Amino acid sequence: MLGECLDRVRQTAPLVHNITNYVTANDVANVLLACGASPIMADDEGEAAEITALCAALTLNIGTLNRRSVPAMYAAGRRANALGRPVVLDPVGVGASALRTGTARGLLEEIRFSAVRGNMSEVLTLARAGRAARGVDADSADGVTEENLLPRARLLMDLAGELGVILAVTGAIDLVTDGARCLAIRNGRREMGFVTGTGCQLSALLAAFLAANPDRPLEGAAAAVCAMGLAGELAFERLAPWEGNMAYRDRIIDMIYHMTGEILEKGGRIEVVTG
Amino acid sequence: MLGECLDRVRQTAPLVHNITNYVTANDVANVLLACGASPIMADDEGEAAEITALCAALTLNIGTLNRRSVPAMYAAGRRANALGRPVVLDPVGVGASALRTGTARGLLEEIRFSAVRGNMSEVLTLARAGRAARGVDADSADGVTEENLLPRARLLMDLAGELGVILAVTGAIDLVTDGARCLAIRNGRREMGFVTGTGCQLSALLAAFLAANPDRPLEGAAAAVCAMGLAGELAFERLAPWEGNMAYRDRIIDMIYHMTGEILEKGGRIEVVTG
Amino acid sequence: MLGECLDRVRQTAPLVHNITNYVTANDVANVLLACGASPIMADDEGEAAEITALCAALTLNIGTLNRRSVPAMYAAGRRANALGRPVVLDPVGVGASALRTGTARGLLEEIRFSAVRGNMSEVLTLARAGRAARGVDADSADGVTEENLLPRARLLMDLAGELGVILAVTGAIDLVTDGARCLAIRNGRREMGFVTGTGCQLSALLAAFLAANPDRPLEGAAAAVCAMGLAGELAFERLAPWEGNMAYRDRIIDMIYHMTGEILEKGGRIEVVTG
Repeated sequence: MLGECLDRVRQTAPLVHNITNYVTANDVANVLLACGASPIMADDEGEAAEITALCAALTLNIGTLNRRSVPAMYAAGRRANALGRPVVLDPVGVGASALRTGTARGLLEEIRFSAVRGNMSEVLTLARAGRAARGVDADSADGVTEENLLPRARLLMDLAGELGVILAVTGAIDLVTDGARCLAIRNGRREMGFVTGTGCQLSALLAAFLAANPDRPLEGAAAAVCAMGLAGELAFERLAPWEGNMAYRDRIIDMIYHMTGEILEKGGRIEVVTG
Repeated sequence: MLGECLDRVRQTAPLVHNITNYVTANDVANVLLACGASPIMADDEGEAAEITALCAALTLNIGTLNRRSVPAMYAAGRRANALGRPVVLDPVGVGASALRTGTARGLLEEIRFSAVRGNMSEVLTLARAGRAARGVDADSADGVTEENLLPRARLLMDLAGELGVILAVTGAIDLVTDGARCLAIRNGRREMGFVTGTGCQLSALLAAFLAANPDRPLEGAAAAVCAMGLAGELAFERLAPWEGNMAYRDRIIDMIYHMTGEILEKGGRIEVVTG
Repeated sequence: MLGECLDRVRQTAPLVHNITNYVTANDVANVLLACGASPIMADDEGEAAEITALCAALTLNIGTLNRRSVPAMYAAGRRANALGRPVVLDPVGVGASALRTGTARGLLEEIRFSAVRGNMSEVLTLARAGRAARGVDADSADGVTEENLLPRARLLMDLAGELGVILAVTGAIDLVTDGARCLAIRNGRREMGFVTGTGCQLSALLAAFLAANPDRPLEGAAAAVCAMGLAGELAFERLAPWEGNMAYRDRIIDMIYHMTGEILEKGGRIEVVTG
């Protein structure tokens, strides 16, 4: 199933519109190409909706948010909704400022998102749980562990149901839920946290996987999460002892480039928590 | 001849002003350093013309176009024209939105460009051929092949003559024409299409090569196109089986870094189609 | 001493707010992660001060300066001053335009900077010495050499005293001075000049090192300069003959990632020039 979801991305080659931050835009573009999709970045209100109309999916990422691109996010989101295309929200650093929090919540109220991807802290902040994100890092106190897996899964299922979205919450254990079912994914490595933008990349992959798998969005989303984590594992094995986070960054994307449905099917560590 | 064109870039070390997109700006800066030129990026109307005046050439790239930087493009272009410095247009994704199409056409009417680089679809759109670019990818139906080489060369020669520019159209076979002659270049690899920004990089190289070779612009432009394609070939040979598009991206630039006039002279596969 | 300064960065993991250019933002984010700090980029006036308040230090970098982010720089700088957090200025290309020169000088008048990092030309321009920066490259005529070391050190000590900042001037020999003492650092390699953004990265490292070493800012600043230069040396040793500036860029950051206090202590080549 996981493997098929990836194969479909390669077969359908979805064009993904990204309104995203300038820190990781290059990595996002390259990871989309690596998985068989195509990227287009366009964040001016004067063209955002038109670009969305050409694309199979849309990602809205609020890292390096600026007020100039907020209207572009709304315009693109509305157009994607009108056309029935999947939209993914990555609420980078939500809670760190009123601008980010207000924008993320405003978007969530007005745009129908297919999926929201963030760490636990970001997702809880977004859900008005009143916790503050410390920059873009997951607060470890909020992370999912073997100990708190079930209560966290239930919490996220409730939130996903309320928000009407798939939630993909990444951390030591990743949880993906559509409100009815919750999947736990145990791929990935701690060292991915030393690479900027692995979260942004995953959000863009989510958009591509959702576009290519319209009949099974939860599985598509889970496959994207598994693919990113598995790429992190395979890439780490290839690192020389003296290579660091930059070599790791590149190699993770290279492993997505070479990932086949078969590799993903074998390497994906996914289980149903509940539902 | 090709080799001399590169040698001159290294000897004259032109400073190139780039008003470009934030997705590939880092690669553009590094590829300019790799070929012996120097980059400066500045896209605010408040300084664009002043920066251009310090530089030997200018590149205008409309990827991630925003309305804020459009006046900067006009101001920089006019100043470069006034000073007689080469200006290159990269109409990324022209046709994908009215903003991109209108900006590209407006620039083409008001600014005297030395060269325009794009894929066939972009160049045809720009020439009001009425075709729409699908994002930033070449529409394969529009690409240059051995079968359609001669008619495509004639079409581009006509367009280059009408527009009064050198056209550098990249694809499976690259064509470079000034309206009087058309050169076909058979360097490069298909896999370069999985790396974001190789086109943006080439446009910046074109500016550097034109600045360094004012007495033979067609040859200078062709040498830049050959250099990029040859770097793609040499880089591909160095890839380990498990390396992907990110390793490839870096290695292409590394091959430009080590490219000498001699290497380019030997490896360039160029022929005169007509003229 | 050098080693302890680095160890403290890893122990305290400072969050650094960067208002910086889009050309090197990804490298800046990854080098901060590599040294044990965390990055956040935010350049909209609507959130800049709030983000600064969450952070241990602030970097203001005027590469790709635009008028939209200038008010954000002032707002962030004032907030950092009010909270007593270190602020670093990187006056990229100051002198190349009235916008850059005016912004850099305006910031220097209104914001209390802990440190300013640039090449000799940029720092002299900033000090109204009336010299013009040629893009972002050091004018070799202005560089520090063994021959002019002492007079240059005295000049910079005077400027540092006048400006009330630590000056970190990078070149063939790096000088770091707080006005009372001047340290010369002989780490680094000439080839680092072919990598875009090593200066931007160093400015961000300076912010992290100053945040982690509040009781010895001169030593902290010098340790950051040594670390960057030493990483450049160690990375160069690891390059294959056919690798170029892109491989070098990544490897420099990888060497920061693996750098320990012990490695820095042994490899740092630092001496007191005067004071």
